[in-house]
Amino acid sequence: MSDQRQLHLGAFMRPISIHTGAWRYPGAYPDANFNFSHLKHFALKLEAAKFDAFFMADHLAVLDMPLKALKRSHTVTSFEPFTLLSALAAITERIGLVATASTTFETPYHIARRFASLDHLSNGRAGWNIVTTANPDAALNFGYKDHMDHDARYIRAREFYDVVTGLWDSFADDAFIRDVEAGIYFDPSKMHILDHHGPSLDVRGPLNIARPVQGWPVIVQAGSSEAGRQLAAEVAEVVFAAESTLAAAQAFYADVKGRMRTIGRDPDHLKILPAAFVVVGDSIEEAQAKRAHLDSLVDYDSGIASLNGMLGHDVSGYDPDGPLPEIPETNASRSARARLVEAARTKNLTIRQLAQKAGSYAGLAFVGTPTMIADAMEQWLREEGSDGFNIMFPYLPEGLDDFIERVVPELQRRGIFRIEYEGQTLRDHLGLPRPHNRFFA
Amino acid sequence: MSDQRQLHLGAFMRPISIHTGAWRYPGAYPDANFNFSHLKHFALKLEAAKFDAFFMADHLAVLDMPLKALKRSHTVTSFEPFTLLSALAAITERIGLVATASTTFETPYHIARRFASLDHLSNGRAGWNIVTTANPDAALNFGYKDHMDHDARYIRAREFYDVVTGLWDSFADDAFIRDVEAGIYFDPSKMHILDHHGPSLDVRGPLNIARPVQGWPVIVQAGSSEAGRQLAAEVAEVVFAAESTLAAAQAFYADVKGRMRTIGRDPDHLKILPAAFVVVGDSIEEAQAKRAHLDSLVDYDSGIASLNGMLGHDVSGYDPDGPLPEIPETNASRSARARLVEAARTKNLTIRQLAQKAGSYAGLAFVGTPTMIADAMEQWLREEGSDGFNIMFPYLPEGLDDFIERVVPELQRRGIFRIEYEGQTLRDHLGLPRPHNRFFA
Repeated sequence: MSDQRQLHLGAFMRPISIHTGAWRYPGAYPDANFNFSHLKHFALKLEAAKFDAFFMADHLAVLDMPLKALKRSHTVTSFEPFTLLSALAAITERIGLVATASTTFETPYHIARRFASLDHLSNGRAGWNIVTTANPDAALNFGYKDHMDHDARYIRAREFYDVVTGLWDSFADDAFIRDVEAGIYFDPSKMHILDHHGPSLDVRGPLNIARPVQGWPVIVQAGSSEAGRQLAAEVAEVVFAAESTLAAAQAFYADVKGRMRTIGRDPDHLKILPAAFVVVGDSIEEAQAKRAHLDSLVDYDSGIASLNGMLGHDVSGYDPDGPLPEIPETNASRSARARLVEAARTKNLTIRQLAQKAGSYAGLAFVGTPTMIADAMEQWLREEGSDGFNIMFPYLPEGLDDFIERVVPELQRRGIFRIEYEGQTLRDHLGLPRPHNRFFA
Repeated sequence: MSDQRQLHLGAFMRPISIHTGAWRYPGAYPDANFNFSHLKHFALKLEAAKFDAFFMADHLAVLDMPLKALKRSHTVTSFEPFTLLSALAAITERIGLVATASTTFETPYHIARRFASLDHLSNGRAGWNIVTTANPDAALNFGYKDHMDHDARYIRAREFYDVVTGLWDSFADDAFIRDVEAGIYFDPSKMHILDHHGPSLDVRGPLNIARPVQGWPVIVQAGSSEAGRQLAAEVAEVVFAAESTLAAAQAFYADVKGRMRTIGRDPDHLKILPAAFVVVGDSIEEAQAKRAHLDSLVDYDSGIASLNGMLGHDVSGYDPDGPLPEIPETNASRSARARLVEAARTKNLTIRQLAQKAGSYAGLAFVGTPTMIADAMEQWLREEGSDGFNIMFPYLPEGLDDFIERVVPELQRRGIFRIEYEGQTLRDHLGLPRPHNRFFA
């Protein structure tokens, strides 16, 4: 492998794709939400293409939108991440497996235990995408009347992270001596009882599973608000960034890596991987036509509902062909709202145009030939816009096949993406250090 | 297959065995707790032997015992059930997969969703072993200062069950029409919002996954207290019974099936499967010698700790060679305590002898030749002591190999155990009906 900086590639997966119209695209598998055989083939293909990780997005409620939009959405329902990724662990050998789990609606003992178990099952390939869950309907599924506000969610998330990583450190790496002759299964001096008592959480420990193969599963995080960036700089090892221009991405990259330097973390110990929606064609015109076809499969009812969800505010009563009104602060994801509002203001988009963007895909997209896409990715890598990408396939299986058969070989030819895995664990793939156990040398 | 009543066989699994000394037994895999390849081979062998189900026991804390006992225990730590069984789902095709999940320390939305996901992943092979969690240390891992008392746990369990099954019924079986032309993914008139508000739980719904393949995963339950029996008669489809004599088992069988008749449930819709610890030898003497060797591998420190745990009371201050003192009511599992107290009184056992029993295995055991074991199982089946057994292998892999290579063929020869699976789902194997959706015809 060359000395050049290397791209890291995650596959940001929903069983049918993140795009609302994808299930209607020619060749799509509309039943993939509940058909494991499709997911199995996707994972095997991504592993054959040497992707760093299979990244499973998640929701904790059906989407918060009117029935006339909801009934059109394949994203309403799908496999649950721990069960799906554990099943994929059994039929793959090297690809990383990143599950989304919420710090707002989970308990840290279960989360620590499930990720540790997935890491053992997969021989060191687990990652935890920490989310705080922006969908207010989720609260109602977990016994809460009101959704926790944005800042409170991040405060709890930080404490939750401390507890989970503390639980992972319950046993020293060499605690399990299994001395058959003496009848000693583990050395009790190498077991730590966390006994955490904090503002949001009380958790005794120890965790009832050995320390994960990777020490800790890889910590992935997505928020790009002020609280999200600071959390990323302090604890994340992969950031699933959302900037949609190179300039914005460079600013984000410099900001987060700068925050790391400020607190004494090595900036190489965090990989910034923006989401990238990639549409491949023989020509730019063909690629654009594919995307336009895909976007045309999104109904206006779906688009306006997605827009309302991303804004955290109902704008369906306004003139669809007029401008976006002032939007009050809400508990929705601040980064998603900010991107839309910025797009509306800078490009003078109408509500109808914004709805089309929101219902399709509003973020960074690479649409063109394999060469053009590789050029763009190489530029982002070289100019410190990112350390790689989380690829969103516009439709499956065709979009995935296009990427791995046409773009990946071009990236490999340029020497900026691996031809073979060089290690076993997800940490190996990402070039991340194995965390020290905070309680044992 | 003959018209005779048929045995149903579950494998009650811990990665190394439930027996405290098993990891020290010749040929054992002491690292099986964290080594998936062993579990994979066990599951494949059980499937080849046509077992109804692989049944994963669980704990939500390290065992509540002093370090001098804990350090000797392999049962302290292992894979988490959802992750393990999902991985096994991917490499098996027919065997049922029963996960233990607690109604005291889980939330119903997550539980409903994970079992539904496991059921879809496995094409209809999931079962839920409902437990209320007797280990008081678990409470401390989930933010509670005190453990919920026995009756309160069962009241919550019943409400939890109602919510989980209601969430599984969120969508009609035919809700997902996926009309590509019209762009309608599902029929919204076939989605039900549960909107449950009860004494312990508030859960809105709907669940964000299609109705499970089996309608509902199979409901498994273990308690044999008054509250446990009534819950079983009302909702269970498999009961993991614990009676250790045929007479007691017949009384339990008649009681629970009688309760079913009283409330109008078909008694065939519940299979009573006592736990059976099975040690196979060429002669009864050899089988007994194997068991004695295994039991000799349990240290007294481990035995007394197990005894204290099962009694919910510390008796280590009493004379080991004296009788068991009066034990006050506690929050521990009532059935485990009652069995031990009964054994102590009827057999005049000392604390040391009880500790040996508790640390080894105190329940129903079939120890003998394949013919003797098959005779006993056939008698229990014919005389309505049970509908089959949950087999506890004393040590692995030898105990499992002995059972499937020597006992299973004998049961098959007698026409009381299947030679091939006749259906696909766990409900098919157990002869259980598919539940109607309570909200849709």
